[in-house]
Amino acid sequence: MTATVYTGIAELSTLDDELGRLHDAALVVEDGRVAWLGARGSAPDADARVDLGDRAVLPGWVDTHSHLVFAGDRAAEFEARMAGRAYEAGGIGVTVAATRAASELELERGAARLRAEAARQGTTFLETKTGYGLDLATEERSARIAAGIADTVTFLGAHVVPAGIDRRDYLDLVTGPMLAAVRPHVQWIDVFCERGAFDVEESREVLLAGRAAGLGLRVHAAQLGPGGGVALAVELGAASADHCNFLSDTDIDALAGGSTVATLLPACDLSTRMPLAPARALLDAGATIALATNCNPGSSYTTSMAFCVATAVLQQGLSVDEAVLAATRGAARAVGRETGPDAVGSIRVGGRADFQLLDAPSLVHLAYRPGVPLTVATWRAGAREPGAPGVAAEGRA
Amino acid sequence: MTATVYTGIAELSTLDDELGRLHDAALVVEDGRVAWLGARGSAPDADARVDLGDRAVLPGWVDTHSHLVFAGDRAAEFEARMAGRAYEAGGIGVTVAATRAASELELERGAARLRAEAARQGTTFLETKTGYGLDLATEERSARIAAGIADTVTFLGAHVVPAGIDRRDYLDLVTGPMLAAVRPHVQWIDVFCERGAFDVEESREVLLAGRAAGLGLRVHAAQLGPGGGVALAVELGAASADHCNFLSDTDIDALAGGSTVATLLPACDLSTRMPLAPARALLDAGATIALATNCNPGSSYTTSMAFCVATAVLQQGLSVDEAVLAATRGAARAVGRETGPDAVGSIRVGGRADFQLLDAPSLVHLAYRPGVPLTVATWRAGAREPGAPGVAAEGRA
Ligand SMILES: [Zn+2]
Ligand SMILES: [Zn+2]
Repeated sequence: MTATVYTGIAELSTLDDELGRLHDAALVVEDGRVAWLGARGSAPDADARVDLGDRAVLPGWVDTHSHLVFAGDRAAEFEARMAGRAYEAGGIGVTVAATRAASELELERGAARLRAEAARQGTTFLETKTGYGLDLATEERSARIAAGIADTVTFLGAHVVPAGIDRRDYLDLVTGPMLAAVRPHVQWIDVFCERGAFDVEESREVLLAGRAAGLGLRVHAAQLGPGGGVALAVELGAASADHCNFLSDTDIDALAGGSTVATLLPACDLSTRMPLAPARALLDAGATIALATNCNPGSSYTTSMAFCVATAVLQQGLSVDEAVLAATRGAARAVGRETGPDAVGSIRVGGRADFQLLDAPSLVHLAYRPGVPLTVATWRAGAREPGAPGVAAEGRA
Repeated sequence: MTATVYTGIAELSTLDDELGRLHDAALVVEDGRVAWLGARGSAPDADARVDLGDRAVLPGWVDTHSHLVFAGDRAAEFEARMAGRAYEAGGIGVTVAATRAASELELERGAARLRAEAARQGTTFLETKTGYGLDLATEERSARIAAGIADTVTFLGAHVVPAGIDRRDYLDLVTGPMLAAVRPHVQWIDVFCERGAFDVEESREVLLAGRAAGLGLRVHAAQLGPGGGVALAVELGAASADHCNFLSDTDIDALAGGSTVATLLPACDLSTRMPLAPARALLDAGATIALATNCNPGSSYTTSMAFCVATAVLQQGLSVDEAVLAATRGAARAVGRETGPDAVGSIRVGGRADFQLLDAPSLVHLAYRPGVPLTVATWRAGAREPGAPGVAAEGRA
C-alpha cells in the first residue's frame, strides 16, 4: 500500500456535513481511500507527493441519471428542432431501432466513451439505465453493458410501449420475464410516468414488481406536464423523482415531507426548450434536490455536470454551494449512497477517494466562469482518470 | 516552407459565403495560410500529414468583446450576488483599484493566461479593451499590455467616471491626453453609453474624438436599460453596438438598416441574471449579429465562445448555423475583418489558417452537447495552440 499526499490545495471543499472550505490544505490517499485531510502544514509523511498548484479540490460529481447504452445519435433531429424545422422520423423509436440493430461491441464502446468523457469532467459516480432495447434480449444486453461501465444500473423497460406489441402484453413482459432477465445486472427500477408513456396505475404496477424483485425505485415524473408521478414516487418511498418540471404545490410539499429526492435535469430542460425545474421553490420548501445530466441522444446529450451546476446557479436561483451540494452529496442521497462505507459525494476520512481538481482557486468559479472546462484532473478511488483524446502526431506524408 | 495536409475531417465547415459543410474532407496549410481544401480523395501531396480522426473542423472563434487587462477577481462578489446576499465594496471600482495597484508583469500574466485559455477553447482572434485604469498612466499601460496579447485593441477610457475627478475634467482627459497616450496601441474607441456611465452627448463626444484620431468606433449600449446608445452607434457608423439587451423596435430597425453589427453577450446576460438579448428578433429584422464572451471579472468571467453559441441556440432561438456564424464571420464583420487579405472567421483558400477540431462528427454538437469541452485542438495561423495546464508529476515525498 502506497500513500500519496496531495498538497497545494488552495481550497478543499469536503462537502462532509456542513459545506466547509479548508484553505491551504492537503489530502492523503491510501489504498483508494482518504486517509487524512487538513492543513497543509500538518500533513503526515507519505510515500509520494503531488503538488496541485494552489488550486481548488472538491468531490467528484455524482451523476444519478443517464441513458448511456444506445447506438446512433440524433444530431439531425436536434438541429431541425432548434431551427424550427419539421423533422419526420425522430423520437425514442429511432434510438430503439438503432440500439436493437447494433452489435454488443458498438454499444459497449459508445457507453464507455461517454463514461470516460464524464470522468474527464469530474464525474466519479455514474448511474445509467436501460430503456432503448424494449425487448427482452436487448434490455438484458443493455443491462449487462450498463453494469460494465456504470456504478449503479437502473432497469427502464417501462420507457415507452414499443411499436408492435399490445400495451397489456408489454406490461406483463416488463414486470415478468424482462425484469427477471435484467435482474442480475441492476439495482433500480424506473418508469416514465407521463402522458404518452405510462399512467399512474401502470407505473405503480411496474414499481411494485421491481420492489418485489428487490430493486430500489426511481420515477421519471412531471417532465412534460403535471401528473401523478411525483406523488406516486413519494408514496412508494422512491429514492428519486426525476425531471420535476411541472410541480403542483402539493407535489412540492410531498417531496419536502418525504424521503424522495427531486432530481433536476437542467441540460435536458434547455435542450428541449422547456421551462427549468423549480429548484429554488423545492429548496425553500425543504426538499432535497439532486442535479444530473440525463445524458441521452434525444433530449440532453451532455455529460457535463459543471454545465448543470452553472445553469442551476445562473438560471434556477441556487447559490453556488447549493448547486454543488446537489451535484454531489444530494445526488448521493438519490442513489442511497450518502452515508455508510460506500458513501460517495463527499471527501471524508475513510471514504472513497473521489475528487476533482479545478484550474481555479475556488469552486465558486464553476458558476462564475460558465463554459470554461475547469476540471483538469479527476481521481476515482484514488486513481487518476485518463485525459482527453488528442490529435495524432504529425507524420511525414 | 512546409505544407501540411490535414485529413480525417468528417465535416469541414468553411463558413465562406453560404454555410456549406464538406464531408470527408481535407485541408492543406502552408506558411500559416490555407493552401487548399476539398474532398479527401483529391488532396494534393504535402510534406506532412495529420489525421484528425474523422472529426469536425470549423473556423476558430472570433471573440470581439473582452476586458482581459485587470488584476484580482470578484468571485466573492459573484457568489454573494448569486446567493442573494448584500455585498459591500463590489463593482468596477474594485477592479480599477486592483489594476492600478498591480505590477505590469502581473497584468501581463493574467491577460496572457486568459488568452491562452481562450485559445485552447478554439478562439483564434481576440479583441480586448482597456478600461480598468481610468487614469492616464494605467490606461496607457493597459493598452500596451492588451496590444501584446490581443489581435485588436479598444480604448475604453470612457468606462465610467472614476472617483476623485470632476466629470467634465475626466471627459477632457479621455478625449485629450489619455487618447493621445493610448493611440499607438489601439485601433478602436468605445464608450459605456448607459445611465450611470455616459449619456448620449458625452458618448458622441468621446466617439468623435476617437474618430478624429483615426480609430474605429464601438459602443456599449442598452445593457441595463433602454437608451440612445444603439441609435448613436448606427448614426456614427460604429462597427458594433455591444450588449443590446433592451432594444426598442426603432433600435432594431436602425441596426437592420445600418452597417453596425449587434454584438450579443449571452454569458454576461446570464451571469448578471438579466434577460437575454433579442437575437432572434435582430436576425428576423435583417441585422447582423455577433456573439462574444465579454470576458471580465465583474459581469461575465468566461472565455468560452462555445458556451455563448450553445446559449444562443438553446435559449435565444437561433439555429446552430446562425449561432456559429455569429461567433465567426458575423463577429469578423464587427471588427472589420470579414473580407480582404486579413479576413478571419472563415476557412478559405489564401486566408489565415485559423481552425479548431471538435471531438465530434459535426458542429451541431456544439449546441447538442452543451458544456462538453468539444474543442480538442486549435490552430492559429497554422500553428497549434498549446494544451491545458496539467498536474505536476508525482514525486517521491
Ligand atoms: Zn431519463
Ligand atoms: Zn464590455
